[in-house]
Amino acid sequence: MTAELISVGTEILLGNITNTNARYLAEECAMLGLSCYYQVTVGDNEERLAGVMKTALERSDVVLISGGLGPTEDDLTKETLAKVLGRELYEDQKIRKDIENYFHKTGNRHMASNNLKQAQVIEGAVILDNPNGTAPGQLVRTEEGKIAVLMPGPPGEMIPMFRDKVKPYLESLTPGTLYSEMLRICGVGESSVAEMLKDIIDAQTNPTIAPYAKTGEVHLRITALAPDQETGKAMVAPVVDQIRGRLGDHIYTTKDETMEEHLIRLLQEKQMTITTAESCTGGLLAGTLINVSGASDVFHQGFITYDNQVKHRVLGVKEETLRQFGAVSRQCAQEMAEGAARAAGADAAISVTGIAGPGGGTDEKPVGLVYIGCYVRGKVTVEECHFSGNRQKVRELTVKRAMNRMRLCLEQ
Amino acid sequence: MTAELISVGTEILLGNITNTNARYLAEECAMLGLSCYYQVTVGDNEERLAGVMKTALERSDVVLISGGLGPTEDDLTKETLAKVLGRELYEDQKIRKDIENYFHKTGNRHMASNNLKQAQVIEGAVILDNPNGTAPGQLVRTEEGKIAVLMPGPPGEMIPMFRDKVKPYLESLTPGTLYSEMLRICGVGESSVAEMLKDIIDAQTNPTIAPYAKTGEVHLRITALAPDQETGKAMVAPVVDQIRGRLGDHIYTTKDETMEEHLIRLLQEKQMTITTAESCTGGLLAGTLINVSGASDVFHQGFITYDNQVKHRVLGVKEETLRQFGAVSRQCAQEMAEGAARAAGADAAISVTGIAGPGGGTDEKPVGLVYIGCYVRGKVTVEECHFSGNRQKVRELTVKRAMNRMRLCLEQ
Repeated sequence: MTAELISVGTEILLGNITNTNARYLAEECAMLGLSCYYQVTVGDNEERLAGVMKTALERSDVVLISGGLGPTEDDLTKETLAKVLGRELYEDQKIRKDIENYFHKTGNRHMASNNLKQAQVIEGAVILDNPNGTAPGQLVRTEEGKIAVLMPGPPGEMIPMFRDKVKPYLESLTPGTLYSEMLRICGVGESSVAEMLKDIIDAQTNPTIAPYAKTGEVHLRITALAPDQETGKAMVAPVVDQIRGRLGDHIYTTKDETMEEHLIRLLQEKQMTITTAESCTGGLLAGTLINVSGASDVFHQGFITYDNQVKHRVLGVKEETLRQFGAVSRQCAQEMAEGAARAAGADAAISVTGIAGPGGGTDEKPVGLVYIGCYVRGKVTVEECHFSGNRQKVRELTVKRAMNRMRLCLEQ
Repeated sequence: MTAELISVGTEILLGNITNTNARYLAEECAMLGLSCYYQVTVGDNEERLAGVMKTALERSDVVLISGGLGPTEDDLTKETLAKVLGRELYEDQKIRKDIENYFHKTGNRHMASNNLKQAQVIEGAVILDNPNGTAPGQLVRTEEGKIAVLMPGPPGEMIPMFRDKVKPYLESLTPGTLYSEMLRICGVGESSVAEMLKDIIDAQTNPTIAPYAKTGEVHLRITALAPDQETGKAMVAPVVDQIRGRLGDHIYTTKDETMEEHLIRLLQEKQMTITTAESCTGGLLAGTLINVSGASDVFHQGFITYDNQVKHRVLGVKEETLRQFGAVSRQCAQEMAEGAARAAGADAAISVTGIAGPGGGTDEKPVGLVYIGCYVRGKVTVEECHFSGNRQKVRELTVKRAMNRMRLCLEQ
């Protein structure tokens, strides 16, 4: 089966935003075993949109359309698809109710009458609930057996909808079954992974091995096409073992969990509490950990100590240390971690101090130099890192590396 | 004039990489005044590639093609364009020399004979040097007066080639110039903005008004097509004034700055310091503020007080308050803001306490209920918010709203 992506949005055509939806959906299609030959972006213009939809429905089996479901008059994706398919629109009472509730809940006394446009549904479409916004999705099967799916444009709405509603439906259509496992790797770059696994990757047929570069991580998806899940699992297992033999503890999980979820789970298992002391990341590390539901079991307090005086006053970093080695130093990272654990009464502490840029770098301490301290019940290790990229990138890489370092300390 | 982007690459179709080239080129086209109606991604397949090229050359004036110029047999963008245009390829001696030199310079003794494929040029094409790689670009003017441009796929090669070679050529072709301004709006949703400005938006011709929904914000781009930048500016000014009359202080800036940059700048201007006391956002608010380069002028310390005991011990929230009203309450938000300002010795403080979900909600205090406290030199205001969405969405919206609330307090 073939799939085609249509992204609708003037903001993509004008280059205001990067089309990350296309990447997400392309990856999902590949994992579903759908061959995706075309991705098209078009604006909120009825004639051009209709043309693109017709072409897609002729040449592809599944057409995934995102964007243009909003409440404004500019948004005409749904209306155009209805015309292309020769179907009517009707107002769905349940959606109308949901939209009214959404506005009631968000304290918006006055629901823009425009929003009721979002209660219009294409005849014969399956409605896809949108718990993250007001525009529901729709899935239509055409007379010719083609499938057209309408999804909202914002990734925060589109991704959960695809994952929870569209993907299970598409899975039910594909012959055989795809079984896949994801190895999540941190601490080694994509090209090194490719080199370490070159012979395995070159020899792949079924299972296949696909690498995906993420911020500070590489994910490897091993996928088998098999008659059933049990057989698929048995086909994937030896490949996973072989890769594990090469990459060792660079693989942090084979579960469907992020680094922060993995770390919080480890701490819960060990019944340990953790705290953070952040300088250049300024709260991002704690913010990432606390994004895990249930983090309150292990995380009670965090410290943002951007200023040197605060590092001394709050964490007890010695003035002598700051004078002699500076705030961006192995010694300061160590004292920050120790001080944070002490002040919060926590079993473990991660400290971060570095130069995120763009200013503040010197020859000796360049932009991208970061020290990460990990305290675990009396023992501290400090890692010196050198990251590339702009301020935000350096901070994101730091957060990822800091969690990885703590994970390695806890797994020892 | 119209432009169309064609991205060639299996790695984009498989979702291994995000198509950032398309965004770059789209923005450049918009700034050049080229109307870009279509972006297409296709793989290294002759038939599909030829089809996409033919369609593009029929419906658009300028076709910018990136990717598929490499040395391997998979790369057939140039060969396919030559066929589509009915032109021959010839070996250019200067390019051959350049490729040989490049390999010599990079210490690569052995030049793959494949690489000589890159010395092949389409009859009548203008050659675009590639100082950052081996594949030169090509610019062809067809018999029908259409322009097709071939560029390499890696952004590090494509961007300098476009900027230095292609853009000056395109500038010489386009009449007039585009001038645009961006209004950034927070505190009111996209549909309400559209309704408040309906008559203005409906009447738009030149300048045009385009709304963009962001997380917790709406951006409005007002763009004039004019003979020169001065005239464009004069055309945009009255539209901006008219919109400002309707939206008032919902517009937080007309500069090219984010909410956090705006807030940090305001604090710098007022020579005030700020601190944060975060519960459900757990450091994200501070992390967002500190992402602004130069935030260290105004932000020295932040508090992550996830646990009730910590709110009491570190910020001095009264145990009585926590018992009587709970941690998610107007009273607690107020005491958190006051306590944070006191403990950090800051002029201003933002506090956040709420229920991000998915657990922890009750009928009385549902998921999405958040209190934001803003302390400014002795005065505290608390805003009660009701957000929808998953845990991460609620936290992101909270961060945006908290910055907006403080911005409004400071601007009073």
